[in-house]
Order: sequence, then C-alpha cells, then structure tokens
Amino acid sequence: MSSKSPEYFEDLAVGDRFSSIEHQLDTGQIVEFARQFDPQPFHTDPEAAAESFFGGLVASGWHTAAITMKLIVDALPLADGVIGTGGHIERPNPARPGDTLHVECTVQEVRQSRSKPDRGLVKVECRTLNQSDELCMRYVTTLVVTRRPEGGADALQV
Amino acid sequence: MSSKSPEYFEDLAVGDRFSSIEHQLDTGQIVEFARQFDPQPFHTDPEAAAESFFGGLVASGWHTAAITMKLIVDALPLADGVIGTGGHIERPNPARPGDTLHVECTVQEVRQSRSKPDRGLVKVECRTLNQSDELCMRYVTTLVVTRRPEGGADALQV
Repeated sequence: MSSKSPEYFEDLAVGDRFSSIEHQLDTGQIVEFARQFDPQPFHTDPEAAAESFFGGLVASGWHTAAITMKLIVDALPLADGVIGTGGHIERPNPARPGDTLHVECTVQEVRQSRSKPDRGLVKVECRTLNQSDELCMRYVTTLVVTRRPEGGADALQV
Repeated sequence: MSSKSPEYFEDLAVGDRFSSIEHQLDTGQIVEFARQFDPQPFHTDPEAAAESFFGGLVASGWHTAAITMKLIVDALPLADGVIGTGGHIERPNPARPGDTLHVECTVQEVRQSRSKPDRGLVKVECRTLNQSDELCMRYVTTLVVTRRPEGGADALQV
C-alpha cells in the first residue's frame, strides 16, 4: 500500500501508484461464482475443464474483475467512493485455483470536470497480477472523484 | 431469443442479433454481491445510498457485468463456450433494485484467426437494458469461436 492516502481529487497526480492487499483464489470460490454468473464447464467442473480450451479450471473473467474491484476499493480510499464510468478490459491470462492476486493502480490522467465544478475525472490503469507476476487483467478506467470541499462544506453536489 | 441457434464460427454473420432471457434484480442480490466484491455504501446500505452520488441503492457495475455474462451464456450457445478476450465497457445508467434486465447482442465483425485455423474471432456488441429500455451497460468484446470440425473431428486444437 502506498504511504500516501488520497481522499480527494486534489490529492491525486499523474504517476501516483497504489498497490492492493492480496486475494487468495481457490476452486470453491471459482465454482461458486461461475454457477451463479458464468455457468460454463471450464469454470464449474475441473474434469471437463481439463479437456477445454484452457486445459484446466479457470476463474470467470468477471470473477477476476469482481475481485479486482474489491482490491481497488481497499487500495483507493476516495472520499465519496470509487465510481467508474466504464473502461477497457484486457485478459491476457486467466486466474486459476491457488493463485494469489493483487492489483497495482497507476494514475494516468487527472482533469477537472468541465460541467461539474465539485469533481474531477481521474484515469487509472489497474493491473491484476498473480503470484508469478503474470497479468490476469488490465483495466483502464476513468473515475469520478470529488474535489475537497471549501469552507467545511461536505456535500457532493449532484 | 433468436430462432437461429449458432454453434460454430461458420454460423455467425455480421448483423446477427440475439436477445437474452430476463433477470429480475432486487435489493438482496445487490447487497450480497457488493458485500463480497464492492463494499461501498451506495451498493450495501439503502439509507446511506440515498445521500450518495446515486441518490439511492445501485448495483455494483461488476454485478451488472456478471448478470450480463449469465444472460449472454444463455443467449449464445457456442459449441466450445463463450470465451472473451476482453473489451470495452460503458455504464450510462446504474441498475437499481426492481429492475428487469435483459441483453441484446449484435455481431459486428467475424474473421478467421490468422494463427489458428480451427477458430475465428467474432466481435459482438452486448447492450444490457432495463425495463424502460435504458442502457445500463454496453460491452463490446471479441469472442474466440471454434470452427465446425471437418470429417467428424470434434476436438478444439489448443
């Protein structure tokens, strides 16, 4: 975790980096998520997965994304929350049972909102890595980040 | 659901459309997912959410994405599964308790893999809509789709 603890738009600058805690992934988590949201044999059935495209059980890409979000929320303590407008996802390698995942975020761009004076837009690259530093997911997203209120005001004007 | 039921790369053409079944979203689902993967007050606490950026409880964007995947897997019965390489996500409107979501997919591009003769790449736009036809998520992704095996062979050569 970075020693810097940003809370408002003014605290973030291009090049700032944040590392998350780790998440231990196991077969039970992979199967439970996939049964609910991505019921395909390579995510739910280790034996069938061995014969699949992936050669073994792999986490749903959306499971990896959800774990990534959990890790980002922990790593980026923004005053009004981590609110993403969307972004671009790449998945060079699937996450597998036994993997230890963590996320590294780098601020790529900061700019004041043109229409809303109380907030800014912060483009962040988030890289989800396993214990061998293989890239499981790369997500580039733009976050809506509140400016520090002036004179003690604390409400985000929506 | 489309009357066409594609299973292999050869069955897909630019302009093909597929509609999913519906998913009923409620507060319990939203809170359960968010506690595990996106523990922020606007996803976990209806009272706190009322004071937030969103003005009420909303589903995590990753929850909407996971539900979208479930609906796509149902709508697109591909022979070797729905395998995405990544893509671009937009989230114009959050999904909220009581929403009825469904997904509409349109094939935008089909091309043979340059390096792998047994598969093709199919670019698909998936739009996740609520009961008022508001767009909750737009996801454009490229899927890896197996070609129909020749001469009765049925194995995907990885």
